[in-house]
Amino acid sequence: MPNRVGQRTLQLHNRPAVAGYAAVVGQKEGEGPLADQFDRINEDSLLGEASFERAESALQKMAVGIALEKAGCTAGDVQYIFAGDLLNQCIGSSFGLRDYNIPFIGLYGACSTMALSLAMAAIFVDSGAATLTAAVTSSHFCAAERQFRFPLEYGGQRPPTAQWTVTGAGAAIVAAQGGGPFVQAVTVGKMVDLGVKDANNMGAAMAPAAAQTIEDFLQDTGTAPADYDLILTGDLGEVGSGLLMELLEKDGIDISGVHNDCGLLIFDRENQDVHAGGSGCGCAGSVLCSYIFNQLREGKLQNILFCATGALMSTTSSQQGESIPGVAHLLQITAR
Amino acid sequence: MPNRVGQRTLQLHNRPAVAGYAAVVGQKEGEGPLADQFDRINEDSLLGEASFERAESALQKMAVGIALEKAGCTAGDVQYIFAGDLLNQCIGSSFGLRDYNIPFIGLYGACSTMALSLAMAAIFVDSGAATLTAAVTSSHFCAAERQFRFPLEYGGQRPPTAQWTVTGAGAAIVAAQGGGPFVQAVTVGKMVDLGVKDANNMGAAMAPAAAQTIEDFLQDTGTAPADYDLILTGDLGEVGSGLLMELLEKDGIDISGVHNDCGLLIFDRENQDVHAGGSGCGCAGSVLCSYIFNQLREGKLQNILFCATGALMSTTSSQQGESIPGVAHLLQITAR
Repeated sequence: MPNRVGQRTLQLHNRPAVAGYAAVVGQKEGEGPLADQFDRINEDSLLGEASFERAESALQKMAVGIALEKAGCTAGDVQYIFAGDLLNQCIGSSFGLRDYNIPFIGLYGACSTMALSLAMAAIFVDSGAATLTAAVTSSHFCAAERQFRFPLEYGGQRPPTAQWTVTGAGAAIVAAQGGGPFVQAVTVGKMVDLGVKDANNMGAAMAPAAAQTIEDFLQDTGTAPADYDLILTGDLGEVGSGLLMELLEKDGIDISGVHNDCGLLIFDRENQDVHAGGSGCGCAGSVLCSYIFNQLREGKLQNILFCATGALMSTTSSQQGESIPGVAHLLQITAR
Repeated sequence: MPNRVGQRTLQLHNRPAVAGYAAVVGQKEGEGPLADQFDRINEDSLLGEASFERAESALQKMAVGIALEKAGCTAGDVQYIFAGDLLNQCIGSSFGLRDYNIPFIGLYGACSTMALSLAMAAIFVDSGAATLTAAVTSSHFCAAERQFRFPLEYGGQRPPTAQWTVTGAGAAIVAAQGGGPFVQAVTVGKMVDLGVKDANNMGAAMAPAAAQTIEDFLQDTGTAPADYDLILTGDLGEVGSGLLMELLEKDGIDISGVHNDCGLLIFDRENQDVHAGGSGCGCAGSVLCSYIFNQLREGKLQNILFCATGALMSTTSSQQGESIPGVAHLLQITAR
């Protein structure tokens, strides 16, 4: 049963296990530094589908299918699937998962969705509400560009602070029993809005939320950054990661020795022209559900914090002059 | 702690209580049959805001504020808020709730969101993950029309199967202790897609999901429609309600004596020109969190099933020729 620690953190005493996981990506991600970590690299950005949106759904379907196989179970065994994505009305999830016939809990956490869905899946298992759950999210560069910015054909210019939406999906199967990695604790974030309005600088909009959630977790648990092998943010990229470090330093917390960011890990920024790094739900999703879980399984990482951030805006809110509220959800995940 | 009953139903043995609730609506809803049930009727469709989207956020903020007051608690007491809406990237919720500073779990369930959010809020309390949670959702006619159909100025014609998006929000505060109503059980729905493609006939798209979830619940619990005072669907409207009845009759289940629908309750279809009835997240939200909870508090209802449905499509998926997956989530709610 989950047990509240401090103001905002839940400790999961039954230690829900990640029984299976998978990450599938597009061509560009498959040319990056994590190429050999992914379960499938899709050279065709349409995945044989008629539209980029359908291709994104296909990514979710594929990631869940492989994760189920690796966990040794079938869709019929899964009691709840938690899923969301960036497309309007989350159609990446609904159309991607419709054929699985699993009770469906749709989430909206923007780029924090891998953390939010995995947190919910783990809390359900820990509390006894379920014995087997799944968490999945996705993004697709071409679908996101035309929805949030411009159609690719327009050839819009990107400022240096802009990030590159990852084409990819990550899925995890969470079970009451299994070999791990294990979800030990969860901190659900509050929205933080410091007034950033630049939709081409999401890292800056989301960094304050990450700082808040990480601080809250450390305070709740009475631990320090040095207690963890890695504090991994979702997709703050270069600009947001720098800001996160600055914000935490102001409160006397130095994470520089253990911090990394999925948006910095997934691409080679020198050679892949992605400006400030990767972004999108599929960024944290595909990095966590490949490289990071692999490292935990292999014992190269023992005890990490995974804190994915989301920018809770839309094109409409930005056009109406609103600032960008950020949110960050955190999970402590261990190898044993 | 939640306990699984049958294939898909969770019984909540600690009986989470709805400690406070509120419904706020627009002018048209305030001219309907439930006028005296609502906490606030806003004559100004903009609520003094600069846009319809901001007005929708204001509805959520207002509903949560009143519900907190009625529950005798403050935002600082609430450990998690579960919220979602129909606007792209759920900005009704993010901008509406950002100032409350409550850990935020964004959901996407389309018009099923009142059921989904209340279910999650209740499961969290029942499992011990929280002692005080909140659930809220909203919709706004003018924001929905321009996002999903046409700007109002266009003067688009509506077919008889079309429904009228409710301008309103419903909020509920769920507590481990309190006077009730009480959430007794939850069935989370699977997506059901029978191939309906007409975005002007949402009732038909969603009815199969409602039928599936109601059947599953009755089977899991070994109960019959006559065991309940009311089986209330979210917003199937006239067309969808008829289809639901037909679908259940085929399997030998007759709910005609106890069925009603929020979309039929909220408007006077004879005199308010709403065609097949009300719809939108705010429809089920504002009817449940006013009239229905009032009836339960007053003992006029004792034992009900609330089953809200959602159509998990977007304008993009419809323009790409996709059919409309439906989903329905169900709660058993009792007076004592």
